[in-house]
Amino acid sequence: MTKEEYFNRFLPPHLQAKDSGQAYAPANIALSKYWGKRDAALNLPMNGSLSISLGALGTHTTVIAIDAPQDMMVLNGKNISPDSAFYRKTQAFIRLFRRGQTPSLLIESSNTIPTAAGLASSASGFAALTLALADLWQLDLDSRILSSFARIGSGSAARSLWHGFVKWQKGEAADGSDSYAMPITSDWQDLHIGLLEIDTAEKSVSSRDGMNHTVATSPLYAPWAACAEADLQTIEEAIANRDFHLLAQTAESNAFAMHASMMAARPALIYLQAESFRQIARIHALRAQGLPLYFTADAGPNLKLLYLAKDEAEVLAAFPHMVAINPFA
Amino acid sequence: MTKEEYFNRFLPPHLQAKDSGQAYAPANIALSKYWGKRDAALNLPMNGSLSISLGALGTHTTVIAIDAPQDMMVLNGKNISPDSAFYRKTQAFIRLFRRGQTPSLLIESSNTIPTAAGLASSASGFAALTLALADLWQLDLDSRILSSFARIGSGSAARSLWHGFVKWQKGEAADGSDSYAMPITSDWQDLHIGLLEIDTAEKSVSSRDGMNHTVATSPLYAPWAACAEADLQTIEEAIANRDFHLLAQTAESNAFAMHASMMAARPALIYLQAESFRQIARIHALRAQGLPLYFTADAGPNLKLLYLAKDEAEVLAAFPHMVAINPFA
Repeated sequence: MTKEEYFNRFLPPHLQAKDSGQAYAPANIALSKYWGKRDAALNLPMNGSLSISLGALGTHTTVIAIDAPQDMMVLNGKNISPDSAFYRKTQAFIRLFRRGQTPSLLIESSNTIPTAAGLASSASGFAALTLALADLWQLDLDSRILSSFARIGSGSAARSLWHGFVKWQKGEAADGSDSYAMPITSDWQDLHIGLLEIDTAEKSVSSRDGMNHTVATSPLYAPWAACAEADLQTIEEAIANRDFHLLAQTAESNAFAMHASMMAARPALIYLQAESFRQIARIHALRAQGLPLYFTADAGPNLKLLYLAKDEAEVLAAFPHMVAINPFA
Repeated sequence: MTKEEYFNRFLPPHLQAKDSGQAYAPANIALSKYWGKRDAALNLPMNGSLSISLGALGTHTTVIAIDAPQDMMVLNGKNISPDSAFYRKTQAFIRLFRRGQTPSLLIESSNTIPTAAGLASSASGFAALTLALADLWQLDLDSRILSSFARIGSGSAARSLWHGFVKWQKGEAADGSDSYAMPITSDWQDLHIGLLEIDTAEKSVSSRDGMNHTVATSPLYAPWAACAEADLQTIEEAIANRDFHLLAQTAESNAFAMHASMMAARPALIYLQAESFRQIARIHALRAQGLPLYFTADAGPNLKLLYLAKDEAEVLAAFPHMVAINPFA
């Protein structure tokens, strides 16, 4: 099934536009990672994943019907050139919704993610855009469908439709209709996240290319999906039991397994930098001294620390540049 | 089968000692690694491995019959206390040969491996000791049997009985009699090795413990053995065809796969340090600029560079502290 066919199945034949639509979506950090696609066109994952959203750190998007020959895009107050890859990628996504029917749009997005956080904004960006377009066109669709739409924009965007803990089930259907994310009802004030920037330069290999390279060439990739599904289940249990140690330890092990699967790719894919490993060694040393401090890391060099609210002062003393977050604030 | 039973099968009922025995064995660097045992007592590997010996860098050992209540050991000119782990481990190995029959021995060993090389000496140590004891007791045994004896002392010692390229076949027999190493006849003057010290402090997890932990806990370990066997075959072909790029690229990928299998262990096992990754990034940057430079790394932070003789000046300019070696000198 193509993306176009998938969208057509759920969208009304004619879109009814309001003057504008708007939405906010939070960034999210996977505790059990998405790494590898079973279907590249539909962004269907090899394995389920589980994330925590970052509350007020995310993307605000407004879409406004305008009288203009083509869409205009503004990101963080700056006009985006129609020649840029970002414009084209966003356009291709919007085209799936409107299929040439509606007037041109002004798409205004702004990220509340601090630059120093070293966080990707594509998940919150595509989630906010999906929700804003659904608002504009008054789409009466189940949030599971909207999650699957966002997934087609950027895999992990499927999880950014909600706050708190979110689980993206891999699904079984060939059309991807059961591969969507849903929130896990939970409020865990004690669980805090620290964003530790290592390097904010744009990475030389995109997540999309990195996971495709890993799936295609890494001799250690085969057990990954089963490993990730088991970790997801463990983390769900840890959330249910408020077991911080189990949650954080499993998240760290899961991140190491993902980075290991990349490191074994041929040629090796290494997103973590020497400085990442230096900070990881510091995290491990602090933990050996009794501080319950763990980390996770996505397809990049930056680290995301996991710790308890009560230890925030101690963690900040060790990592003064860290951005501290209460995801349930 | 126990180690004792294995040795008894091949040794004469009564040892005939000369006054002394002596031997030299080179250190070796695996191009396709040994990582994981299928039998811990007999040191039987999950997969075959292939190494290159380091010529004059290795261990000289002399064993001399003495009139004393117990064995004496001297390593690099220093007396070894009978209370040390090193003494006990060596004694346990010698006991397999003599089974209480012979007089006490003075075992003198000296390593020609420069401290700055960051190389383990257990492989050359157990290989030299095996050969020196075979000389002392005039054992008329096939070198394949002696290799299997050395293997029981320390797995990779099986490969240190020879110079040049050496292949340790994993074998199939439960008693390990077909798990021995043999040389690959080849002389490749263009292939040079650079030893790059990162940290010479004793590692906190031994190779033995590290591989057992990986086999027991790493969700990505399962495909390792097949990966390593395939790499071994590729490297054998590369040797036959004098294909430096294929040999070095496969060796580097194999090392990454081994380190990846450890990194995915739970908890993670990370022998490479931040400084190792910093130097690996430099190697990759030089390679991207056209210098055919690769590396491999064992269960420790130090790197072993692979390059062609013609590039030695350039490699030394980039890594002035490197110890340059021609393994076929």
